[in-house]
Amino acid sequence: MHKPITLAMAVVALGYLYPAAAQQKTATAQLETRFDQQLSSANVGATIKTLSAKPHHLGSAEGKVVANTILEKFKSYGWDARIETYQVLFPTPKTRVLELTAPTKYKALLKEPALPEDATSGQEGQLPTYNAWGGDGNVTAELVYVNYGLPEDYERLERLGVSVKGKIAIARYGRSWRGIKPKVAAEHGAIGCIIYSDPKEDGYYEGEVYPKGAFKSEYGVQRGSVMDMVIYPGDPLTPGEGATASAKRLERSLAATILKIPVLPISYHDAQPLLAALEGPVAPEDWRGALPITYHTGPGKATVHLQVESNWNMVPAYDVVATMKGAEYPDEWIVRGNHHDAWVNGAGDPISGLASLLEEAKSIGGLVKAGYKPKRTLVYCAWDGEEPGLIGSTEWVEDHAAELQKKAVAYINTDGNGRGFLGAGGSHALTKLMDGVARDVTDPQTKVSVYERRRAANIVMAAPAARKNVMEKKTLSLGALGSGSDYSPFFQHLGIPSLNLGFGGEDDGGEYHSIYDSYDDYTRFKDPDFSYGVALAQVAGHAVLRLADAEVLPFDFTDLYKTISGYVKELTDQADQLRESTLIENKMIKDRTYQLAADPTKPFTAPVAKAEVPFLDFSALQNALVTLDRASSALSDTLSHTTVPAGTRQRVNEALFQAEQSLLVAQGLPKRPWFKHTIYAPGFYTGYGVKTLPGIREAIEQRNWKEAQEQIQVVAGAMNKFSAKLDEITAMAK
Amino acid sequence: MHKPITLAMAVVALGYLYPAAAQQKTATAQLETRFDQQLSSANVGATIKTLSAKPHHLGSAEGKVVANTILEKFKSYGWDARIETYQVLFPTPKTRVLELTAPTKYKALLKEPALPEDATSGQEGQLPTYNAWGGDGNVTAELVYVNYGLPEDYERLERLGVSVKGKIAIARYGRSWRGIKPKVAAEHGAIGCIIYSDPKEDGYYEGEVYPKGAFKSEYGVQRGSVMDMVIYPGDPLTPGEGATASAKRLERSLAATILKIPVLPISYHDAQPLLAALEGPVAPEDWRGALPITYHTGPGKATVHLQVESNWNMVPAYDVVATMKGAEYPDEWIVRGNHHDAWVNGAGDPISGLASLLEEAKSIGGLVKAGYKPKRTLVYCAWDGEEPGLIGSTEWVEDHAAELQKKAVAYINTDGNGRGFLGAGGSHALTKLMDGVARDVTDPQTKVSVYERRRAANIVMAAPAARKNVMEKKTLSLGALGSGSDYSPFFQHLGIPSLNLGFGGEDDGGEYHSIYDSYDDYTRFKDPDFSYGVALAQVAGHAVLRLADAEVLPFDFTDLYKTISGYVKELTDQADQLRESTLIENKMIKDRTYQLAADPTKPFTAPVAKAEVPFLDFSALQNALVTLDRASSALSDTLSHTTVPAGTRQRVNEALFQAEQSLLVAQGLPKRPWFKHTIYAPGFYTGYGVKTLPGIREAIEQRNWKEAQEQIQVVAGAMNKFSAKLDEITAMAK
Repeated sequence: MHKPITLAMAVVALGYLYPAAAQQKTATAQLETRFDQQLSSANVGATIKTLSAKPHHLGSAEGKVVANTILEKFKSYGWDARIETYQVLFPTPKTRVLELTAPTKYKALLKEPALPEDATSGQEGQLPTYNAWGGDGNVTAELVYVNYGLPEDYERLERLGVSVKGKIAIARYGRSWRGIKPKVAAEHGAIGCIIYSDPKEDGYYEGEVYPKGAFKSEYGVQRGSVMDMVIYPGDPLTPGEGATASAKRLERSLAATILKIPVLPISYHDAQPLLAALEGPVAPEDWRGALPITYHTGPGKATVHLQVESNWNMVPAYDVVATMKGAEYPDEWIVRGNHHDAWVNGAGDPISGLASLLEEAKSIGGLVKAGYKPKRTLVYCAWDGEEPGLIGSTEWVEDHAAELQKKAVAYINTDGNGRGFLGAGGSHALTKLMDGVARDVTDPQTKVSVYERRRAANIVMAAPAARKNVMEKKTLSLGALGSGSDYSPFFQHLGIPSLNLGFGGEDDGGEYHSIYDSYDDYTRFKDPDFSYGVALAQVAGHAVLRLADAEVLPFDFTDLYKTISGYVKELTDQADQLRESTLIENKMIKDRTYQLAADPTKPFTAPVAKAEVPFLDFSALQNALVTLDRASSALSDTLSHTTVPAGTRQRVNEALFQAEQSLLVAQGLPKRPWFKHTIYAPGFYTGYGVKTLPGIREAIEQRNWKEAQEQIQVVAGAMNKFSAKLDEITAMAK
Repeated sequence: MHKPITLAMAVVALGYLYPAAAQQKTATAQLETRFDQQLSSANVGATIKTLSAKPHHLGSAEGKVVANTILEKFKSYGWDARIETYQVLFPTPKTRVLELTAPTKYKALLKEPALPEDATSGQEGQLPTYNAWGGDGNVTAELVYVNYGLPEDYERLERLGVSVKGKIAIARYGRSWRGIKPKVAAEHGAIGCIIYSDPKEDGYYEGEVYPKGAFKSEYGVQRGSVMDMVIYPGDPLTPGEGATASAKRLERSLAATILKIPVLPISYHDAQPLLAALEGPVAPEDWRGALPITYHTGPGKATVHLQVESNWNMVPAYDVVATMKGAEYPDEWIVRGNHHDAWVNGAGDPISGLASLLEEAKSIGGLVKAGYKPKRTLVYCAWDGEEPGLIGSTEWVEDHAAELQKKAVAYINTDGNGRGFLGAGGSHALTKLMDGVARDVTDPQTKVSVYERRRAANIVMAAPAARKNVMEKKTLSLGALGSGSDYSPFFQHLGIPSLNLGFGGEDDGGEYHSIYDSYDDYTRFKDPDFSYGVALAQVAGHAVLRLADAEVLPFDFTDLYKTISGYVKELTDQADQLRESTLIENKMIKDRTYQLAADPTKPFTAPVAKAEVPFLDFSALQNALVTLDRASSALSDTLSHTTVPAGTRQRVNEALFQAEQSLLVAQGLPKRPWFKHTIYAPGFYTGYGVKTLPGIREAIEQRNWKEAQEQIQVVAGAMNKFSAKLDEITAMAK
């Protein structure tokens, strides 16, 4: 499978990291070839078909069947496997009513129809369309369209003289994680929230709709969690603690991550009569979707009745955990995970990623049967309850926190997978590892490496002005991780080096979290020959094997330094721009520029002047960067040019994989102590979207200068602690 | 009406230009106050109602009635008025058929319905929906969607593997002048062209539709000319010559501005079934409109039958010309114009602008009756046949070319008008004149000056990064003129300093060139109290009076220098960027980057490498700029600091207003000798959109390096001739 040229390139990359292990390269390549030979696209397809055969959400009987099937697979592959069970809260729908009560009547369908073209779409056991973790409620009020429902959308509404106070907000899916929308709506006084899929982002605007094409039909609905996961993910009743049977639990009413207002997701078929009934200002240009109506913000005569009640049941979450013990360093774990629970059948999300994980486990099992002994212990996991809020992974991580912080070398996550380009995000000290891996895996369609194909896409997608820079970049870019899958507890709570991997970009569609995320859909539109399922198994599997067998673990913190350095530059630029734009904006307000430019016949409220942006003292951070530059370079030089003595190798490796924990702070981020990483977090107002250097960045965005200044000191402190750790390793490795 | 503060500011601006005429400022202000006092919004409204009472297109009986009504008005105001008649070709519809013949049948309505809410919408005498100057033809072929129908859209189609050769193109209105669309379609081998109004640009996407709101309903159709006016406007049979009865005429088949393929405009009601039937690739994101369908490029099963035939009749064009003889300089003319013909009733276009012109004439007539004597001759014109191709104005200008080049100080044009912000474009040497005028006219809604209101809008509309620059700008910005109204022959053919003026931005709607451009529509959505009709009369009227009575004409060529200097910077940047982007693009092609990034399951044709962009020798232009800087500054200094001797004043003034003619070149622009101005022209592929330094800019855009180099010399030559002229004036004025 290997192309000589890409292998040669990988050798160069690896050589930089493993000077003392030149012989190992050939062994690695040979092992990976044998690993690849046992991967079967047909088997990936069969696994997807089996595990997506029935609806299998958290707490369902079929969920338990799926967990047991996975357990048996691991065992059959020669792994030591078990199920770890947690007792968690999980709301399912009891009552769902949505109706337009004025100026005309419309009763929402709240139902996706079964289709003859989709064999599983009419099965029993499907969760109805709903958003888990909305509050119970029965409200009737005027409706207001809030665009994506982000804080800036409410600023815009204020300028238009529109308030959601005491009203029901209708937001469209997109731009943010869905849970942000009802949270921000409630912050602004809304008493209910509807989230709909607009055909602009998710429907006919994008392409032909299902079942003719892949995109969302007028009846498709995106289910999903609206738990306030940016506070903490996992079981809302047991923050920071594994939800074992004996765990101490909060009263439900005290759980900060459960919303207070009712929330319901709807199709664009159900949304259109509601939106068409709105009055008030015409929605700003960038608020308009693709429905054949004039979008208004409301309010007006459109009155809506929304009633949502849930069964707030305790259910078991079944995490399947399989281990293959390491021969040399059994207490160094490479953890690999993908969830198994789905909103409905979940052929794409999560089964396509899980099928790759199981294929890796099968192949590794085969290697082991043939005599291969991984140096380190492999821990392969299939999580339950990811969909409602990363529940299975979070509870397991919280339950095993101390052991993981001691033993986990890295956590490698996948989730849904499809045809297209490699997406890789994670700890930037693993950049060179993933660069080498990506150069060694062949893209099934073009036969160049997945690195080269990703690079081509990056160049083509770049803005013309940025293209030259993108072309000149010579290594894989790892994205920064926000949230949205099971890496969060490992990475942002415990500081375990993490990766999130998957292919996509040519697997567009509208099936996400609907009854149409089925095997029929997957094989028509996602990865028809499962070749990207194999490619993902190669990428994740090779990363696992390289980590498992490295003499010296392939961490290079100079890449992390460069990345953080870029973030600091962004922050100083952002503060400067905010200062400049605030001055200009305040002058415009003082000069009445907005009033003079506004149409006097339309409602308009001028914005209010904001406090000027002070110059922040970034020096602690800038000095910490200088220290990190020196420390990371010294360590990288040392590991490149000297052979770590065998006697200290284990201590060096342990220090290498534990180093990232120095970037945590015990008190966590402002307002959300569970998130302890100073470099990466999901945005408080974006959700999935990452905020890097989050303590500082969000304080600046929220114009909280005191907190920004404090957080600069906090982050600089963590970085200095981290640099000191690197210095220790350098000294140790010599 | 004057606010002291804005008057004070104007005095400063005027003081700069008229050092020797400080006393005149008070006289000017007093005269303008008396002028303003005679303007009546009620009368503007009454004029609009009268002149838009019936459909009155070129060649219609009602058109003649309208011309006579205008003639009588001028006479009643005390002007010397006459009608000058030309004999011109004008096609009107004989046959119009459009039907989808496969895969389903649909026969297009091609008809706008009468509405009870619009009193004139059901009148007889309406021209049917059509595009004048398309070829006669009867074709049946597959359909291809070409977006806006611009050259870059065809490049995109080629990348998608789609050709229009032998097919019928369907383009949406927008981005370019409509005549560009069938012209470019024909260049690419299309045998017919349909132009439709997409609700994205012109319909419910923008706001509520007529008659509930102002925007285009599903049945509205935009009529309009598709004459290839960027070659030459006016009667196609008499290029460069007035279409008098005895003029030499071309054979119709030899007229370069008449298209060869049939063209038809349609509503979005008629377009939807056609577009929905298209197959082939999904249209690129920026090609998609607001219809509730998936936009495809075609082709596929969608087959269309298009038949268009015209009556190619000769008709009389009635230009109404009114003069008020100058007391001191009768052979120096201030020409003011607005057309009177409409596609249908034309309350907005053109009658709203014409009503302001007539109001000015009425007021000036009143002033004259009360003893005012303009120093220079005023020539007020109402043009016929503007809609089909600037016919009345062009023929009159061509007929009187020599006299106009000798006598015309300036041409001030208006066309439709509405509520909102002042838009002013034209000869940049008149920047300070218009800055002063705009500071002295009060915005009816906000009571600040129309300058201040325009400035506020510019600031608010600016991209955040550009705001600071816009805020720091201390004078009115004149736009550069492309085409689309009657200034073209004066300005771009003869080099007569020109201005185009109008208010708008709060008068949105979809009535343009439809039967709904009516008095009912105008009074609901455009300028309900006609106060902007009065404001336009003030702006245009004050400009006329200031030009008419100036001791030394208010031309300041330093503003023109600054403007041209900016254009040269744009061109050198453009050449550099094109060089850089061509290098990058060619490398991407060589590296197969596009192929690797493309979805292998979709049709894709990689772009072809382009010749590298050579370094052009801009030195002649840069040196000419230095000369112009010096010459314009010297003249400006001289006129500011010395009093022109009375004996040479007339020669100086004549030289000042004739100076811009030095920027013409006898051979005209490449491929279009009628357009002789080296600084401003309508774009060969944009139509209305201006191209500044057009000879050079379009050669660069079309990658014709030899022509670009030649044109640099041509433009530099014209600029040097112009600078020499300014030096002569400086010498004369001392």
